Amino acid sequence: MEKSIGIVGAGVAGLHLGLYLLEHGIKATIITDKTPEQVRDGRLPNSVSHHHVTLARESRLGVCHWPVEEWGYQIHRHYFGLPDPLAFPGRFSAPSRAVDYRIYLPRLMDDFEARGGTIYYRQIDRDEIPALGEHFDLVVVGAGRGAFSEMFPVRPEYSPFDRPQRILCVGLYTGVRPDEPESVTFSVSPGHGELIHIPMYSFSGRVDVLLLENIPGGDIEEMAHLRYDDDRRLFLDTLLAKLERHHPTIYDRIDTARFDLQDPKDLLQGGLVPGIRHSAAEIGDGAMAIAVGDAHATVDPILGQGANIASHSAWVLGEEIVKADAFDRAFVERVDHRRMDRVLGAQRWTNMMLAPPSPERGALIAAMSQNPALADEFTENFNYPERQWARLSSPESIQAWIAEKS
Amino acid sequence: MEKSIGIVGAGVAGLHLGLYLLEHGIKATIITDKTPEQVRDGRLPNSVSHHHVTLARESRLGVCHWPVEEWGYQIHRHYFGLPDPLAFPGRFSAPSRAVDYRIYLPRLMDDFEARGGTIYYRQIDRDEIPALGEHFDLVVVGAGRGAFSEMFPVRPEYSPFDRPQRILCVGLYTGVRPDEPESVTFSVSPGHGELIHIPMYSFSGRVDVLLLENIPGGDIEEMAHLRYDDDRRLFLDTLLAKLERHHPTIYDRIDTARFDLQDPKDLLQGGLVPGIRHSAAEIGDGAMAIAVGDAHATVDPILGQGANIASHSAWVLGEEIVKADAFDRAFVERVDHRRMDRVLGAQRWTNMMLAPPSPERGALIAAMSQNPALADEFTENFNYPERQWARLSSPESIQAWIAEKS
Repeated sequence: MEKSIGIVGAGVAGLHLGLYLLEHGIKATIITDKTPEQVRDGRLPNSVSHHHVTLARESRLGVCHWPVEEWGYQIHRHYFGLPDPLAFPGRFSAPSRAVDYRIYLPRLMDDFEARGGTIYYRQIDRDEIPALGEHFDLVVVGAGRGAFSEMFPVRPEYSPFDRPQRILCVGLYTGVRPDEPESVTFSVSPGHGELIHIPMYSFSGRVDVLLLENIPGGDIEEMAHLRYDDDRRLFLDTLLAKLERHHPTIYDRIDTARFDLQDPKDLLQGGLVPGIRHSAAEIGDGAMAIAVGDAHATVDPILGQGANIASHSAWVLGEEIVKADAFDRAFVERVDHRRMDRVLGAQRWTNMMLAPPSPERGALIAAMSQNPALADEFTENFNYPERQWARLSSPESIQAWIAEKS
Repeated sequence: MEKSIGIVGAGVAGLHLGLYLLEHGIKATIITDKTPEQVRDGRLPNSVSHHHVTLARESRLGVCHWPVEEWGYQIHRHYFGLPDPLAFPGRFSAPSRAVDYRIYLPRLMDDFEARGGTIYYRQIDRDEIPALGEHFDLVVVGAGRGAFSEMFPVRPEYSPFDRPQRILCVGLYTGVRPDEPESVTFSVSPGHGELIHIPMYSFSGRVDVLLLENIPGGDIEEMAHLRYDDDRRLFLDTLLAKLERHHPTIYDRIDTARFDLQDPKDLLQGGLVPGIRHSAAEIGDGAMAIAVGDAHATVDPILGQGANIASHSAWVLGEEIVKADAFDRAFVERVDHRRMDRVLGAQRWTNMMLAPPSPERGALIAAMSQNPALADEFTENFNYPERQWARLSSPESIQAWIAEKS
């Protein structure tokens, strides 16, 4: 069977899938509304780190252009701003790595075209999807959280929230002293939110992601509304004051005189509603569209799972496309059967971390601060969210995990 | 974690699970309402053949007491009573084997007790399940299609029927000449139903299962209502006349003078409603009950999938019990994640075979009659119903399968 796959969207899911298909001799066409230059010149789209399972996929695809030896990190530092602060590290078995997606995605678009993939640069509306169904054996929708949402309705059983649980303010900064060795920090200010610091490779080389995950109504939410472009100094001074008060281990690494955004475009503010959508839609004449990435599962970025599960889902989808005789409901079900444990694990674990901590989670944090094996497994499981969820799914499972490791 | 598992029911699922747990050092207790003697002396409970994936599990458990060299068969013969009859064989890669469950189950109950398992012989009502939840870490319900049905409601999305699609009449007979080599026959009388003939090991040695799957309102339905005990000769003569008219390849093998049930108890008549039920129920205080076997998925016996998927589900459940830290909702979801492709594949494929044939199914039958590779894959897939369903799930997938093999 000669197969020709149409992919709407050139995010990590669309590109990993497209490259996978080309590697397997399957015709792949990407339709996206932004050229590589427009992506490169655009505003910060997100803050993403790839864990080693994702980097392994990049290596298999021959697109691991940013070696972890130079750009990777292998440690998560945890800081809990309790009356008696808790701080402890967790170690990965292999490095993770963050590259600015305005560098990453255009480079993979170039790879895709250089290997014979076709990219059409145009906006696609919902109404045009059936026409794509006539041109392609399968239409993959890996674009946007909005435009195609009516095609793939939210599954309420997996989507507990109707509003954002954190109001985000994420930027790429200079003037933060690197940790030695490089690490990511999760800093928690109870009642106010989290700060995730990530060392990232961007246009000026190494920069510092500060991802503020602010609890609505808390003391830091303001940072999601202050406009840098209106008053740069007010924005930076307010941010510095919040960091000093709530996230001291990061504040201590800041050279306040040099501290600034890498560029005024390097700031993203707002909120998203986490949720999982139906996987597939019939688009007329028996043709199917299948959702992948954010179009399928939107995850709060607090744990950085979105891009990693999008890449995983794309890979599974690619494998099933290679094997498939027909792109029918059963095909979609096979894809879901293989991806949903990881997608659901990431979603549920993330949603758990957005909720106020239970006594068992408190006990786990205390145990991890004393027990490196436990903290290391917690960290390594950023690669395997389904394993993390098996550990965290109930008070009993958390207690059993602590008992097993002590 | 010391684990103690309570299993309600001593069918193939309960026993395979119980034996698996004992092998892995986990305490297993079976509660069932019939002693081995009562099972042995009872009416025919079903007609079951184990395919090689199930036999492999038996070997791993050390309970493969009926060697396939003596009792196995490796061929399915197909007969379609069309104006121009079609007949063709399909071959398994390894033998299947049918043993009367009134011999099979008591022997495995003996094995279970000999290896340290405990069996309590008593009727359990729905009301007593919560008390079991206090005694065991997990309660497995593998009994009955009725008693616990309210605990595990039907899932309508997987249960398309509200009444039996076939009215069954299954018996163990003597006086049928064995095929050389031994084989199973699927004989189809369009509009009236199917006859499945299976060579089985029973109390008198080799007997012949005749499983009549009668379409309601068709010419053979009568056989599901005639009472052998009321008028043995009328029953047999009517059956012989139906076989002669509808299932000639089996009729031709019958020595009418010797033809009879092995024993008056060896007859089962009636119908069942296929369906899949919710997997788990909370039984108070956070304790869980999980359904397996018929309590979870009731499949029409036309393809003989019920026992094989029950054994598969029991095995998956056993593996997950060994790994589990806690028996919570996430545990059940992991079990389902691993078993549902096979369970759903068996259910959907079976339900498809109960429906009037589509043009594509007709084309597949015609193609199989000409193409042994296709017929062999169809036959081998009795071991892997999820693969069969991937082949049969849509007109396009059937066409692609035929094209691939021609």
